Amino acid sequence: MSPPRTADDLYAVVLAGGRGTRFWPLSRRARPKQCVSLTGGPTMLQDTVARLSPLIPPERVLVLTGPDMAPLVREQLPDVPADNVIVEPSPRNTAPCIALAAVEVARRAGGRAVLAILPADHHIGVPADLRAVLASAREAALTTNALVTLGIEPRYPEPGYGYLQVGSEMGSWGGHTFRMVDRFTEKPDRATAEQWVEAGTHLWNAGMFVFTADAIRDAIREHLPETAMAMLELSRDPALLPEVWPQMTATSIDYGIMERSRHILTVPCDPDWSDLGAWPALTDVLPEVEGGAGLAQKVVSVDSNDCVVFAPGKAVALVGLEDCVVVDTDDAILVMARSHAQSLREVLERLDLEAPDLT
Amino acid sequence: MSPPRTADDLYAVVLAGGRGTRFWPLSRRARPKQCVSLTGGPTMLQDTVARLSPLIPPERVLVLTGPDMAPLVREQLPDVPADNVIVEPSPRNTAPCIALAAVEVARRAGGRAVLAILPADHHIGVPADLRAVLASAREAALTTNALVTLGIEPRYPEPGYGYLQVGSEMGSWGGHTFRMVDRFTEKPDRATAEQWVEAGTHLWNAGMFVFTADAIRDAIREHLPETAMAMLELSRDPALLPEVWPQMTATSIDYGIMERSRHILTVPCDPDWSDLGAWPALTDVLPEVEGGAGLAQKVVSVDSNDCVVFAPGKAVALVGLEDCVVVDTDDAILVMARSHAQSLREVLERLDLEAPDLT
Repeated sequence: MSPPRTADDLYAVVLAGGRGTRFWPLSRRARPKQCVSLTGGPTMLQDTVARLSPLIPPERVLVLTGPDMAPLVREQLPDVPADNVIVEPSPRNTAPCIALAAVEVARRAGGRAVLAILPADHHIGVPADLRAVLASAREAALTTNALVTLGIEPRYPEPGYGYLQVGSEMGSWGGHTFRMVDRFTEKPDRATAEQWVEAGTHLWNAGMFVFTADAIRDAIREHLPETAMAMLELSRDPALLPEVWPQMTATSIDYGIMERSRHILTVPCDPDWSDLGAWPALTDVLPEVEGGAGLAQKVVSVDSNDCVVFAPGKAVALVGLEDCVVVDTDDAILVMARSHAQSLREVLERLDLEAPDLT
Repeated sequence: MSPPRTADDLYAVVLAGGRGTRFWPLSRRARPKQCVSLTGGPTMLQDTVARLSPLIPPERVLVLTGPDMAPLVREQLPDVPADNVIVEPSPRNTAPCIALAAVEVARRAGGRAVLAILPADHHIGVPADLRAVLASAREAALTTNALVTLGIEPRYPEPGYGYLQVGSEMGSWGGHTFRMVDRFTEKPDRATAEQWVEAGTHLWNAGMFVFTADAIRDAIREHLPETAMAMLELSRDPALLPEVWPQMTATSIDYGIMERSRHILTVPCDPDWSDLGAWPALTDVLPEVEGGAGLAQKVVSVDSNDCVVFAPGKAVALVGLEDCVVVDTDDAILVMARSHAQSLREVLERLDLEAPDLT
């Protein structure tokens, strides 16, 4: 794999507006998943920015987040210039965020500058592989003017993900092979996912995209014309954001653009990606401990297996437990069967009503 | 049931030397079960003494404990005179403790004074019933000169307990009927326990005894002559305790005296007794919460049943859990399947070797 070249025109756009509830009680409304450390070290947001260096230094990292979270985001990213933290006036999903970022990048570096769209709350086990594929995707995006989506080699038939059906080969850049995307499919049934993974015809859509500011503007013009109008006004006067923001179509980049566009490229890659969608996923990234994986001062396990423990600073004893998640924070404890991770939502709904200080 | 009479000759002897590990991580070596609060209020030791008033006021309560625990015991029982907390020089099981207490009670109030031997770590749901039966047992002990053991009406065939086979009726005192004990049996097999409970022929031996100082001295003289010799020396000079203590036979009152004596009375009673032998037993004494019983700032349960939660001050969410115990303390967490409560011992053995500060 070729080393990343100088790419002064490559900007990271980190989407950090998420409000996930799937890591309660560690994550909270005021401290969402991307702003916590799931592994004991830096937060996911900090990791997301740090792993881009030296390909994309902090001054070319833009972070999009909500008004209430912006102070925490700036605090966690002291090397990112404060005005690179761009505040979405209200939550309107990812397409308006990317439109806003595209206007900002074009204003700073022109329409041929390249945006790498990156979620703030995903795990990447091999950052060098991510940087290499981003560098290649930049070249592909500049050469073809296509929208590029990173395609993760699927490791198992996860029905909760989006899948890319891979088409014909379009060329190689930076040692990576790029192919057409024939179709996007969100959340297939399990049998379908199994078939795809076995046949090797599909990749996981990881929500990481690379394109020039001009290319995404053109795609938005075609598929989200109201958003394109708002972008035009914004590019004339950034101060108009509060007025034009509500005119942008509240939709995701996947649904609003990617699934409707015909000229999408993907590049298969495997930087040990995980979206760490819920507590059970930590098995893959936390150190092995007795009885499973976890982070704790000490774990002692008797007749226990496949548990996930998150209790930094405490000793945890697991006795006769299979497939459980144990999480401790200052004010709350979660003990959950792995198989019930989807039901954590119900806990949050209850707490919203009965003890909102805990959500 | 008649009210307790004045009984200035009745002394409580509270056995508070236990080192149970079955309530880890709440109980620790330096803070054993009897010195912690399992229900959120007073400690078990404090409850044990408090529930005796007004029948036995604190000045007639003797507490036996180890040298390292004596300061904590005195601190927890400010109303009990400091020299009523009697220090066993070393652990030698219950018979020497009771011998020591008998000498002390005889010294203070004569050989016809009555001792009520009471474990410090049992739960009594209806203290008035306990006081009533102790008052009656005092009368029986004074009248018959027998050793009296309280017999708990068995509620289920627990193989872990000691059983009393009930014999012929010996008389009534204070509204209670007293019967001969034909036989003591420790830990029968389950089938035998089931048969006994169904037939109504047996009572649980709860380790609560009532006898005069003279009666227990005579029984010790018969069955534990070396202990009786030591008692004699001690009654001449209490300062000899360090020398005579090792001469006493290290055995339990049950095995050393009760099982060998032929003149034991029992009185069936039901003061809602429980020995709270391990975490799962707290189901019977903790308030009902979502998903089971427990003590916590809040418990939210989704698809969970029959759990025991002990996490005062914290919110606890249980998701998809059956029959689990969840315990939180400042430095340690226990999550345990109910069925594995006996395996907690293995956790302690491991911690003794690897992290003794946690035991």
